[in-house]
Amino acid sequence: MLYTSPAIERAIEQLSRLPGIGRKSAQRLVFYLLKIPEEQVSELAQSLTELKQKVRYCSVCFNLTEEDPCPICRDPARDRSTICVVEQPNDVLALEKTGQYRGLYHVLGGSLSPLDGIGPENLRVRELVQRLQGGEVREVIVATNPNAEGEATAIYLAQLIKPLGIKLSRIARGIPVGSDLEYADEITLARALEGRIDL
Amino acid sequence: MLYTSPAIERAIEQLSRLPGIGRKSAQRLVFYLLKIPEEQVSELAQSLTELKQKVRYCSVCFNLTEEDPCPICRDPARDRSTICVVEQPNDVLALEKTGQYRGLYHVLGGSLSPLDGIGPENLRVRELVQRLQGGEVREVIVATNPNAEGEATAIYLAQLIKPLGIKLSRIARGIPVGSDLEYADEITLARALEGRIDL
Repeated sequence: MLYTSPAIERAIEQLSRLPGIGRKSAQRLVFYLLKIPEEQVSELAQSLTELKQKVRYCSVCFNLTEEDPCPICRDPARDRSTICVVEQPNDVLALEKTGQYRGLYHVLGGSLSPLDGIGPENLRVRELVQRLQGGEVREVIVATNPNAEGEATAIYLAQLIKPLGIKLSRIARGIPVGSDLEYADEITLARALEGRIDL
Repeated sequence: MLYTSPAIERAIEQLSRLPGIGRKSAQRLVFYLLKIPEEQVSELAQSLTELKQKVRYCSVCFNLTEEDPCPICRDPARDRSTICVVEQPNDVLALEKTGQYRGLYHVLGGSLSPLDGIGPENLRVRELVQRLQGGEVREVIVATNPNAEGEATAIYLAQLIKPLGIKLSRIARGIPVGSDLEYADEITLARALEGRIDL
């Protein structure tokens, strides 16, 4: 029988549920948390709770935001004739960091993956088409990940959007194939935007 | 200017303060937390808060515990004539997992490190000597880490404890079970030779 405090056990268990954190790392984290001042731990705990309370999806682009619509959708300085379609909110963050893109976004919430049972109805595809039917949008840049699911999603979107007479492009594969958008450096991402090709 | 939600920014900042978690990992964790149900996040946050509220140091062995003295110190089945001296509470956990040790512990709270300004007065050395003066203890096993600071601590403790007429031992340093001789460093190999046991 192992003598551990139930509170320690519980914290280790909770932390090791997080992606990329195994039991050993969780243990290390817990012993670290036990060493630092209590205020710092409650600050951390509070920031996690507030995260869920304050952050929601933008009803226009489905990016994460504290205000609806999100600051990007409300910004009059952004080019409302271009929409960049991405899989996840962190992709918006990555693209914003390049400082090269001044249009709007649309966050699908994933990519087509028949094996995982994810079809168009599980993504914000219908909402995208509705935005495009408004008539204001002249170009859609598809910036889904350059992997099998992302490419399939791009092809699917192309079939859907082309009949609407909207210019369609795909970010250039300056990004190494098989990797994730969020790991690309700013310059590579900026190049990928510059070199986008018509779909 | 980057559009991020202050709540997301704050959670990322808080998480990236943890050891072994960089900004990118913190970002991933935050987006993961935003995806899972709110109850799961508050469970995690609560477990971290409770950690600090419930867990304290055992006044006898200075292990982390929710009750004082800790379950090991109170257990009548443990051998009270042996004390194993370790640096940190997680070392107790590691040793308990072996299931081989039935004595008590003493957690120093670190190791001697003059460069970091850590002397004997910053460790629970005085408290260890007080326990040994009780007369009940017949053996002290020094299980500090086999690095420079841990060895220095072991030597310092030896000088302090030997005059008390208590048997003193140091955990064996050698080749880890399952590893290869050719990958072991010279010092470890030398120690493994020194510490050879009769077959």
